[in-house]
Amino acid sequence: MGKDTKSFMAMKGAGYYSRATIGAKHVMDNAAELVLDAVARMDPADDATMPFRITDMGAADGGTSLDLWRRVLGDIRARAPGRPIEIIYTDLPRNDFAQTFQNVHGLTGLKTYADEVPGVHVLASGTSFHQQILPAGTLDLGFSSTASHYITHVPGPIAEHVHMVGAAPGERALYAAKGAQDWEAMLLHRVAEMRPGARLCLFNFGIDAQGRYLGNTGGVNMFDTFARLWGDLRDRGVITGQEFRDTNFPQVYRTEAEFTAPLLDKNGPVHRAGLRLEHVEARVVRCPFEQDFTERHGDAAAFAEAYIPTLRSWSEPTFAAGLDSARPEEERADILNAFYAGYQSLVAAEPEGHAMDYVHIYLVARKAG
Amino acid sequence: MGKDTKSFMAMKGAGYYSRATIGAKHVMDNAAELVLDAVARMDPADDATMPFRITDMGAADGGTSLDLWRRVLGDIRARAPGRPIEIIYTDLPRNDFAQTFQNVHGLTGLKTYADEVPGVHVLASGTSFHQQILPAGTLDLGFSSTASHYITHVPGPIAEHVHMVGAAPGERALYAAKGAQDWEAMLLHRVAEMRPGARLCLFNFGIDAQGRYLGNTGGVNMFDTFARLWGDLRDRGVITGQEFRDTNFPQVYRTEAEFTAPLLDKNGPVHRAGLRLEHVEARVVRCPFEQDFTERHGDAAAFAEAYIPTLRSWSEPTFAAGLDSARPEEERADILNAFYAGYQSLVAAEPEGHAMDYVHIYLVARKAG
Ligand SMILES: C[S@@+](CC[C@H](N)C(=O)[O-])C[C@H]1O[C@@H](n2cnc3c(N)ncnc32)[C@H](O)[C@@H]1O
Ligand SMILES: C[S@@+](CC[C@H](N)C(=O)[O-])C[C@H]1O[C@@H](n2cnc3c(N)ncnc32)[C@H](O)[C@@H]1O
Repeated sequence: MGKDTKSFMAMKGAGYYSRATIGAKHVMDNAAELVLDAVARMDPADDATMPFRITDMGAADGGTSLDLWRRVLGDIRARAPGRPIEIIYTDLPRNDFAQTFQNVHGLTGLKTYADEVPGVHVLASGTSFHQQILPAGTLDLGFSSTASHYITHVPGPIAEHVHMVGAAPGERALYAAKGAQDWEAMLLHRVAEMRPGARLCLFNFGIDAQGRYLGNTGGVNMFDTFARLWGDLRDRGVITGQEFRDTNFPQVYRTEAEFTAPLLDKNGPVHRAGLRLEHVEARVVRCPFEQDFTERHGDAAAFAEAYIPTLRSWSEPTFAAGLDSARPEEERADILNAFYAGYQSLVAAEPEGHAMDYVHIYLVARKAG
Repeated sequence: MGKDTKSFMAMKGAGYYSRATIGAKHVMDNAAELVLDAVARMDPADDATMPFRITDMGAADGGTSLDLWRRVLGDIRARAPGRPIEIIYTDLPRNDFAQTFQNVHGLTGLKTYADEVPGVHVLASGTSFHQQILPAGTLDLGFSSTASHYITHVPGPIAEHVHMVGAAPGERALYAAKGAQDWEAMLLHRVAEMRPGARLCLFNFGIDAQGRYLGNTGGVNMFDTFARLWGDLRDRGVITGQEFRDTNFPQVYRTEAEFTAPLLDKNGPVHRAGLRLEHVEARVVRCPFEQDFTERHGDAAAFAEAYIPTLRSWSEPTFAAGLDSARPEEERADILNAFYAGYQSLVAAEPEGHAMDYVHIYLVARKAG
């Protein structure tokens, strides 16, 4: 019954995802050495009786991190030839974990480490990273890329924008506070999971010292464009004012100071639980679609067509959730299609300055002991 | 994008599955005391530093075992209040693990233990039970119900039937040999995973001392009916002779002697690895649809309509796989619909004797040490 439909969906999903998220993969590939350095500092013991446990939190279908893990798992295997490794892919319960397992186990054609590195046991968890995922003291290496900007819930409306980066000061303060609260709680859950000496590598969307963030690195501001085009639909009566107000990304982008605060506050619970900052830096990873356009093909229409799916892949659930659920399914699909078509026309007509450059804050921490 | 389709599919899948597999749930509910007794004999230590690890192998969407695990996990929690528990749901990589996590985490309305028993960490694995799933020496309680009859591959054709229970003696010997080989290998993987003192509870489809097996408990033989109706389609030219021959359930039903042989052979690798038989018995669990018909409603058409989906839920992939993949998708669907419609008409016209009674061999083993 469902079999054929299911695997068709999964394949469609897989292709759509991997093209759309090549930038997220670059982020991890570029920063793999931070993880390798952390492992080198840990110097894992070659203990056959104590599995080396890894989490990849908010891993989605696991496809983008395969190359990073091939390198890191190979390195751990070389350091500890007889030690079993468990790698646990986590995401929300609705995530397509069948796709994750198929990617990792080499059933979808993606190059995987599964047949290359012996003694690796692949597991999954549907427990939110806002909760404790593993039993206390059992984690050796916690990892997450491009995921911890998702907060537990939206703390309030944003009247004239869709993302906290464009919120009015009072609105924004609520988001920043919620972001700080969730971040501290996230770190407390992680430090509880970690063994003494374990490492945590978190590569998160953030705001750098120059105020840059995802899609805002000097050219056209992506989130302002989202807000403007969504506002146009409101002004033209396609969506209601209520729907515009109900559209808020459940995300907080944090500054380096906000990320490191709980780690540096000697009297705070995170530092007291033993989590110590080892490394922090900000990096910008260039938008691969803009780079292709600028340095290779110069075809604005082709750029727009390649670029919009990457925005759509992660932003659509938020715009869809803003729409009144009383609208028929088809009507909602039409609105969303029109919205992204509008964005695509804009880029095709005036491509200059459009780019979803990734701005990440890279953190490495260790648990004392 | 996929979101709405996905959750629709999942809901359809969930409902279809749970109605169709109520009998599989009865099997587990009835035998929960075997697991509880095994836990009582283990008497797990209240050790906060050593997670108590459980596998539910071939768990599908995890819905049918929720009640069993609520009792067993509650019992372990009472015996070891401070000990973390990890329960790992395993199945093949394509299994709908998103559905599993949603069921277990209480997002689908099924009654779950998730909010009831504290300190339980839910994980999943897409590693076949024909391989080692967990690192050596880390498993406390291995469990599987109604799954280990699936062999790694079909050892040969069955010319005039679709299941090894109806194969000619020479054909059947190949299946029995393959079944013995896979079973021994499965037990070796399990004993490697187990800690000394750990327990293994396996409730498998089998053949009892009276020669009874699934759908063959005195009335109309279900597998003979499958073979006859599939053969009718061949004789009428709806499917080809090749397709009939290519239709073979990748399953072996084993006798009690076949199940226990590797555990009792003192010179064999399983016994030498430390696995010891603690309990074995055969039981028949009555077909709930036949029981409803016979004892409650007496409506043959209603019986047939309720009964066929339970057969279809697990048999359809085998009949679908037998069909020539060159046939258009729609044509294949038509053939399968006609096939099950034929079975339904048969039951509606002559309901007496039709029943998918479950015949299981229940095994409990311990790892010495
Ligand atoms: C942008 S994707 C990143 C995927 C992958 N890490 C990468 O970088 O390519 C963010 C992922 O985080 C997941 N996510 C969001 N909130 C989460 C939570 N509370 N717990 C676990 N995963 C979460 C989303 O479902 C999504 O799969
Ligand atoms: C009849 S269902 C039983 C589901 C559940 N245990 C119950 O009793 O309700 C059999 C399950 O075994 C799974 N299965 C078959 N071969 C397997 C294998 N080699 N490894 C893991 N699971 C397997 C199937 O995918 C299916 O979900």
